[in-house]
Amino acid sequence: MSAKNPKVAVVGATGAVGREMLEVLAQREFPAAEVVPFASSRSAGSKVEFKGAELTVRELKEDSFAGFDLALFSAGGSTSEKFAPLAAKAGCVVVDNSSAWRMDPKCPLVVPEVNPNDLSWHKGIIANPNCSTIQMVVALKPLHDVARIKRIVVSTYQAVSGTGQKAIAELEGQVVRLMNGKEIEPKVYPYQIAFNCLPQIDVFLDNGYTKEEMKMVNETKKIMGDDSIRVTATTVRVPVFYGHSESVNIETEKKLTVEEVRQILASAPGIIVEDFPEKKIYPMAVNAAGQDDVFVGRIREDESIENGINLWVVADNIRKGAATNAVQIGEELLRRNLLRVPS
Amino acid sequence: MSAKNPKVAVVGATGAVGREMLEVLAQREFPAAEVVPFASSRSAGSKVEFKGAELTVRELKEDSFAGFDLALFSAGGSTSEKFAPLAAKAGCVVVDNSSAWRMDPKCPLVVPEVNPNDLSWHKGIIANPNCSTIQMVVALKPLHDVARIKRIVVSTYQAVSGTGQKAIAELEGQVVRLMNGKEIEPKVYPYQIAFNCLPQIDVFLDNGYTKEEMKMVNETKKIMGDDSIRVTATTVRVPVFYGHSESVNIETEKKLTVEEVRQILASAPGIIVEDFPEKKIYPMAVNAAGQDDVFVGRIREDESIENGINLWVVADNIRKGAATNAVQIGEELLRRNLLRVPS
Repeated sequence: MSAKNPKVAVVGATGAVGREMLEVLAQREFPAAEVVPFASSRSAGSKVEFKGAELTVRELKEDSFAGFDLALFSAGGSTSEKFAPLAAKAGCVVVDNSSAWRMDPKCPLVVPEVNPNDLSWHKGIIANPNCSTIQMVVALKPLHDVARIKRIVVSTYQAVSGTGQKAIAELEGQVVRLMNGKEIEPKVYPYQIAFNCLPQIDVFLDNGYTKEEMKMVNETKKIMGDDSIRVTATTVRVPVFYGHSESVNIETEKKLTVEEVRQILASAPGIIVEDFPEKKIYPMAVNAAGQDDVFVGRIREDESIENGINLWVVADNIRKGAATNAVQIGEELLRRNLLRVPS
Repeated sequence: MSAKNPKVAVVGATGAVGREMLEVLAQREFPAAEVVPFASSRSAGSKVEFKGAELTVRELKEDSFAGFDLALFSAGGSTSEKFAPLAAKAGCVVVDNSSAWRMDPKCPLVVPEVNPNDLSWHKGIIANPNCSTIQMVVALKPLHDVARIKRIVVSTYQAVSGTGQKAIAELEGQVVRLMNGKEIEPKVYPYQIAFNCLPQIDVFLDNGYTKEEMKMVNETKKIMGDDSIRVTATTVRVPVFYGHSESVNIETEKKLTVEEVRQILASAPGIIVEDFPEKKIYPMAVNAAGQDDVFVGRIREDESIENGINLWVVADNIRKGAATNAVQIGEELLRRNLLRVPS
């Protein structure tokens, strides 16, 4: 165990995000002394790839975390609720990708490009935000700093990989069956996702919004550290494998021109501006797939209000929306010498 | 030639919308004395189906319209620009589905549920609005009448059939090739449409918006007869065959509750409210396909402003978005005894 070369656990290592966490740890050369994959008893014993080698997945147990410095969790809310506190108690800092701890006032909710300073008050569990929220706040924070965002109206176009491996298989399977004139039977989603748009992500709440929509409302305020930002969201699943796209409309206190927005975003961390309409250059899910950056384009002045801007924001939901952001939090903890559970 | 049993020309009869016009004329039992399909010389001589029989497509010529009462055009802007005035001159009323005449102050732009009275001042050419605009104004007009809509923020999820037969074939072809691990070569769209979202519909204008986006802005004001409505749009092509979906956010002058919106829309013409979140009932493209109504659901109060409502609006873009609306205009002209070119 060393602060410089931490021992890392990946919990939920056989899932879509877990596998990508291993991939990102390798690609970004995270200076781990060791990386150990964990999963439920069902997947324990199976193999996952890491740096060209095969690692055997260990069963997640209550005493699994002794000797570990960092655990990246992506194993669902109930696993996180039970095991994240056990890890922290064992001295292992948790970066949790579920929604279990995100709105807990004792847990920072962090996007390294946006609010890295919130890491300073962590108590052992740091929450990784919702995928659609991460890419939006990366794009909006630099504009908020300059012009103060008063209101956000966002509509999303979300890929099936956000639901996990089984949803990727469901879209594949439905496409093949439909193209062969066969009936389909939706299992992961309530209705056909192939060649359709589903205006439901996660469950419905009493106010008529889905949980996903309210995550975008609430997590945005917490990450941006500004409860005065008003947000309304419509989140939609589309038949895309990788990459969430978002149509984002903002109203700012101070006027921003299109050129100013381009310049601010071009020099902001984690963002690539792709915005040459005359050359048909704009962000697209298929291009963002496999990338760590947030792509922003279709920057337009919204003339329906005094200070309005429309943006099209795209990122790989499994990478920047989940695995990459979690690994970046680990990197930032190392850099700030915060990879320890405060006593 | 009789006002009660008009002789009808369908111009562009071999295209996706033209075929659907024939289908809708038959299904709605439009009281035509005769229906004659026209197309360019390239398609002349080919056969199209009408009421179980095969009709031979005639070549469109300058003198084609003698003896006709009504011509439904869906053959592209340049054909409409040239032939619609010739038809009108020959005493044949034109309902034109291209964008050629929509913003012409001498041509009414009509959605029968919204502004049927505008038919009274037609001079021979009536414009059929843009597909994404039609379904939105059907849903919004009843709310505007009660609460006055001040601002609309809309993001669309548009099907490939809006581009025509060749785009349907392109999505099919790309899906098959990609599922077989083969390379694709986009032709109709600038980039891959399968498993992707393209934030470009039609060409870009100088203000950074696409033509499709500005159609939604300008046509909405003309159809609703209210230039004070502020509109901003982001229009996106998604890998769906039939059915446009729209995430519509409105700000009204008078407060509307969700229940009020449901009641207003449920009793409005041409609308079916599908809005039981607790039962996972909401509009979807695959369900709207083949239907003539506009489906509205996901009705929510937008708490980010004082008087805000979010809606999810879905319709078959080839039917209500094009063919059905054109035929309904024909029906309304008959009913109002307006199926004649004023001298």
